[in-house]
Amino acid sequence: MPAYATNMRLKFPILALTLEIITIILFAVFVVYDDGHEDSHGDTHGNSTEDGMAKNLRLYPMFQDVHVMIFIGFGFLMTFLKRYGFSSVGINMLLAGFGLQWGMLMQGLWHLNPEGKFKVNMLKMINADFSTATVLISFGAVLGKTSPVQLLIMTVLEITIFAMNEHLVATVLKASDVGASMIIHAYGAYFGLAVARMLYRPGLRDGHDNEGSVYHSDLFAMIGTVFLWMFWPSFNSAIAESDAEQFTAVVNTYLSLATCVMSAYAISSLVEHKGKLDMVHIQNATLAGGVAVGTCADMDIEPFGAMMIGLVAGIISTLGFKYLTPILAANLGIQDTCGVHNLHGMPGILGGLAGIVAVAMGKKKEGNAAMQAAALASSIGFALIGGAVTGLIMRLPVWGQPPDQNCFDDSIYWEVPEEEEENEESLAHGDHSKNKAEA
Amino acid sequence: MPAYATNMRLKFPILALTLEIITIILFAVFVVYDDGHEDSHGDTHGNSTEDGMAKNLRLYPMFQDVHVMIFIGFGFLMTFLKRYGFSSVGINMLLAGFGLQWGMLMQGLWHLNPEGKFKVNMLKMINADFSTATVLISFGAVLGKTSPVQLLIMTVLEITIFAMNEHLVATVLKASDVGASMIIHAYGAYFGLAVARMLYRPGLRDGHDNEGSVYHSDLFAMIGTVFLWMFWPSFNSAIAESDAEQFTAVVNTYLSLATCVMSAYAISSLVEHKGKLDMVHIQNATLAGGVAVGTCADMDIEPFGAMMIGLVAGIISTLGFKYLTPILAANLGIQDTCGVHNLHGMPGILGGLAGIVAVAMGKKKEGNAAMQAAALASSIGFALIGGAVTGLIMRLPVWGQPPDQNCFDDSIYWEVPEEEEENEESLAHGDHSKNKAEA
Amino acid sequence: MPAYATNMRLKFPILALTLEIITIILFAVFVVYDDGHEDSHGDTHGNSTEDGMAKNLRLYPMFQDVHVMIFIGFGFLMTFLKRYGFSSVGINMLLAGFGLQWGMLMQGLWHLNPEGKFKVNMLKMINADFSTATVLISFGAVLGKTSPVQLLIMTVLEITIFAMNEHLVATVLKASDVGASMIIHAYGAYFGLAVARMLYRPGLRDGHDNEGSVYHSDLFAMIGTVFLWMFWPSFNSAIAESDAEQFTAVVNTYLSLATCVMSAYAISSLVEHKGKLDMVHIQNATLAGGVAVGTCADMDIEPFGAMMIGLVAGIISTLGFKYLTPILAANLGIQDTCGVHNLHGMPGILGGLAGIVAVAMGKKKEGNAAMQAAALASSIGFALIGGAVTGLIMRLPVWGQPPDQNCFDDSIYWEVPEEEEENEESLAHGDHSKNKAEA
Repeated sequence: MPAYATNMRLKFPILALTLEIITIILFAVFVVYDDGHEDSHGDTHGNSTEDGMAKNLRLYPMFQDVHVMIFIGFGFLMTFLKRYGFSSVGINMLLAGFGLQWGMLMQGLWHLNPEGKFKVNMLKMINADFSTATVLISFGAVLGKTSPVQLLIMTVLEITIFAMNEHLVATVLKASDVGASMIIHAYGAYFGLAVARMLYRPGLRDGHDNEGSVYHSDLFAMIGTVFLWMFWPSFNSAIAESDAEQFTAVVNTYLSLATCVMSAYAISSLVEHKGKLDMVHIQNATLAGGVAVGTCADMDIEPFGAMMIGLVAGIISTLGFKYLTPILAANLGIQDTCGVHNLHGMPGILGGLAGIVAVAMGKKKEGNAAMQAAALASSIGFALIGGAVTGLIMRLPVWGQPPDQNCFDDSIYWEVPEEEEENEESLAHGDHSKNKAEA
Repeated sequence: MPAYATNMRLKFPILALTLEIITIILFAVFVVYDDGHEDSHGDTHGNSTEDGMAKNLRLYPMFQDVHVMIFIGFGFLMTFLKRYGFSSVGINMLLAGFGLQWGMLMQGLWHLNPEGKFKVNMLKMINADFSTATVLISFGAVLGKTSPVQLLIMTVLEITIFAMNEHLVATVLKASDVGASMIIHAYGAYFGLAVARMLYRPGLRDGHDNEGSVYHSDLFAMIGTVFLWMFWPSFNSAIAESDAEQFTAVVNTYLSLATCVMSAYAISSLVEHKGKLDMVHIQNATLAGGVAVGTCADMDIEPFGAMMIGLVAGIISTLGFKYLTPILAANLGIQDTCGVHNLHGMPGILGGLAGIVAVAMGKKKEGNAAMQAAALASSIGFALIGGAVTGLIMRLPVWGQPPDQNCFDDSIYWEVPEEEEENEESLAHGDHSKNKAEA
Repeated sequence: MPAYATNMRLKFPILALTLEIITIILFAVFVVYDDGHEDSHGDTHGNSTEDGMAKNLRLYPMFQDVHVMIFIGFGFLMTFLKRYGFSSVGINMLLAGFGLQWGMLMQGLWHLNPEGKFKVNMLKMINADFSTATVLISFGAVLGKTSPVQLLIMTVLEITIFAMNEHLVATVLKASDVGASMIIHAYGAYFGLAVARMLYRPGLRDGHDNEGSVYHSDLFAMIGTVFLWMFWPSFNSAIAESDAEQFTAVVNTYLSLATCVMSAYAISSLVEHKGKLDMVHIQNATLAGGVAVGTCADMDIEPFGAMMIGLVAGIISTLGFKYLTPILAANLGIQDTCGVHNLHGMPGILGGLAGIVAVAMGKKKEGNAAMQAAALASSIGFALIGGAVTGLIMRLPVWGQPPDQNCFDDSIYWEVPEEEEENEESLAHGDHSKNKAEA
């Protein structure tokens, strides 16, 4: 069965090294250091009176916050699965490490200067991290059911398409999306859901033994949650145009997230057995306020406006985990491992809609509500079509995807340490299914 | 038994949503964005020649350090208990997420501008985080023995009273407490101890099976410890008046903490069986130097002065854990789960006393030793009385507090994943006691 | 057997308190606060037109990044061992907490001002953290096989010798080593390997039951890896001379690390059984790009030049773990617990060589390739001789080193919580060997 040839020994190193060497060549051709002076294309936003090099260093702490969200936040958030922590944090690092290089190229190539080069400045580095976020969101939808080779292919395609949509939204439509509710969150979520639909596994309809958490894996996941939660104001404000807009984005995001915590906890308790809190909701729905306030983070929506967005986001996200995810899996064949539809999909659309309303109400100077709506539609359209095509490619039975029984199990792609004696039996069982996979 | 009606299904969501909606309304009425210009009340400290908006952004990295201390630091520090990690990091997030909103209101309402509004600037956001720290310290004293409903009530009351004392100390007495040894650490600790006294549980006199750590829970706690330790210089310097005082506060805190590590390790080894180190001491007493140097962090106490404070703090904190905590529990009915008396109480008083001495020695221009002493007395007084009253309210048998046998156990308020087969027996035992609780 | 008198009750507290009191006295004599003005010795590098105090605060976020690398990064990276996590993160904190004080003194004493004092500024604090990094690297080589007393002695000696070499390299040779490939990484690695050679344990030739990871200990280690990886650009750029060089160092390090991830993953899969990834490689070799680009981080090597360095570093580091470490242990008697030769030794030399080439190609104004080569030789020479002498001192049978059977086991120096019932048997075994040790 070629579909289950999960031995990565040649496929993965050849693909990874080939991609990296191509990338280095493209960097050699196109990329130069920033000298602090603006190109004629004017790709450095912001206070034009500020020295470019000073701005690079001033934004550096915000860049590092975003970096922590990408590598610790997304990486550990996905460690909630009991036997998939190595892949969650490790493959997250692989995809983000390559994705930021690819994202810098794909975004930079749209803005070459007259010499045919583009400059690496801090905004480009932040945007490169942003482009990887789309991949990491989609990774959440297919977590546990894909091989590293499949995921590297997804990274290349998803970021390339992201850069097209981003160019359309920002440069052509001139829509506003400072915190990227539309172009990152909605895009990443619906891209991932389309891929998940293409990779539908009927064999997992009734769940899988390993698709759950243990006590300490839930605590590892909370490391991811809390770092995402704390640094989201940096994510939503890093590329704001002026100091005042940057600070507004910080305040709105901070308040939206704080409010979202309250509504996520309240609804989790309301819908659960005996009023208990559910870790899945706490790990994810508490972050929906950051997603939903993204598009209008830098707009003058008033502090209480940001809080109302957060309140609603926490409610719909928690309800989505409780009621919608099972329906998507059972009726639409969309098996969304991490529930990215609830954390990024619906809150991303909410953010896009809030942006349309806010712009229509004049909360953003020079904004245009129709362009905002076009940006939302474009982001979802690119996501669904791009994700479907990418999923079709990923479905080709040559990329080493795991058989159903080895899903959600690190040991198929990782050397996993043997556990203490008392676990030997369950490991023996694990080895057994592995043997099946590689037979 | 109504006291043990631990089902939170209605109580908790209703309380949380009601509080949040009230908070949003108050924000709508009172809170506006900062425009970078000082109000007539002059609530933005610091270099008056600096543009307010630039200051907001310059302080942002320090704010994020404080944010990490509040959400990762306090949250993970308390995960040392073997079966209480969800509550530690999760309820910490709930209380801090609500507390920062409430704290911003309670502190801002003391300083309304002529239009009846106050502005959200970075200093207000830092102070809002500070106000939540008092609650998280008190949470440590009652950890494992209180329901989320009780703790939300404590949050509202403790922060309201904190804001009164803070106003008295800073505005009326004009005492100096840049790192808040008195108004946060001593206040939070004695407030929590007074609550713990009111909630005394004779049934836990001989300890509880779950009141201890396992190997990995101690490692999770070290995540909290180390982040608190590293970022404490930001905590103690964030609201300093001038650049020079801010840097002095950074240096003093950094040196006090480094010294405190050495004395905490030394004394831990000295007092323990066969000279072994005790994780409880390492997790907590290494931080006492940050608490104790708080009040005089921005004063000219010389680097070696800061180190001597750290040396003494590490010693008394470790000795407190070893000898004083058992006495408080056995003789005074104060069951202090995390030993906040040793980390925040005694070192906070030490910090207040050091501040009195330093001001008396002229280490702070315009300081007044009598006002420093009054501030210390006020902080402890508000804490003891406020904590006692709050504890009486929390003791009402309608807030769903856990029965003794379910203390220190997440499963009473959280959905907890089932463990591997080998733990089934102990879980069965857990379910058994839970059934008792809900009977 | 005096060699195995592992009771630390008097030895450790007396040594720690004595060292700390000596240190406080030296601080009282020599150390004053920075006032923002340059001394005549000109020890504050950087833009001379910038106000010193503003620079202190501007560098503070980078300092905190470095601080996180030292305390979280190194500390958690070493928690991969199944029963040695308390020591990894705890003794790391002890050594770094003392080491930064000692390092500040040892480096500052070379640059006293006319009044016989030196000023604590932010660059001194960053350099103090740097000096501790050498000790933490060496700690990795002897992890699990040394007592806290031995390690405190190593800290004092290694940092004292580091300061000599640093003075020679920076002030006498005027060599360039902004990211310290030579003076920290190569020095720390070869110092540690020389110590490990002196402490060679024939009894561990065939490995040790505890010298391995469990599933969750590998996840704790990834916390260290990822924080080191993210913040390495701060490490390599913090002490750069100008804003432009600082930003160049950020970019080069960021790109080298991203590339290194790809080559480390690719080679790990290529050399492992069935193409699986090995956590040891992922935890360590992904960081080699940060080490190797250190010396020429601030030079004009072009973005693709930095990437090529990262590509090579990831390859040689992974191959080193796979093939060289076993040879060193079997044939040279060098038991390198964490494989520091692969993460810091070889990549450090690669960095030094890259620096020689880059300077010879004119990538650094005022650089001199011969001086670069002398700096590399000096760093390795000081390391080997200093490490050998230090190892001889540490080998004296009075410092409480653990017997072979208690290596890699926290319980010899720490109170370790009792595990659930199912682990009792293995703990009983642990107690048994402990009894042997203390007989």
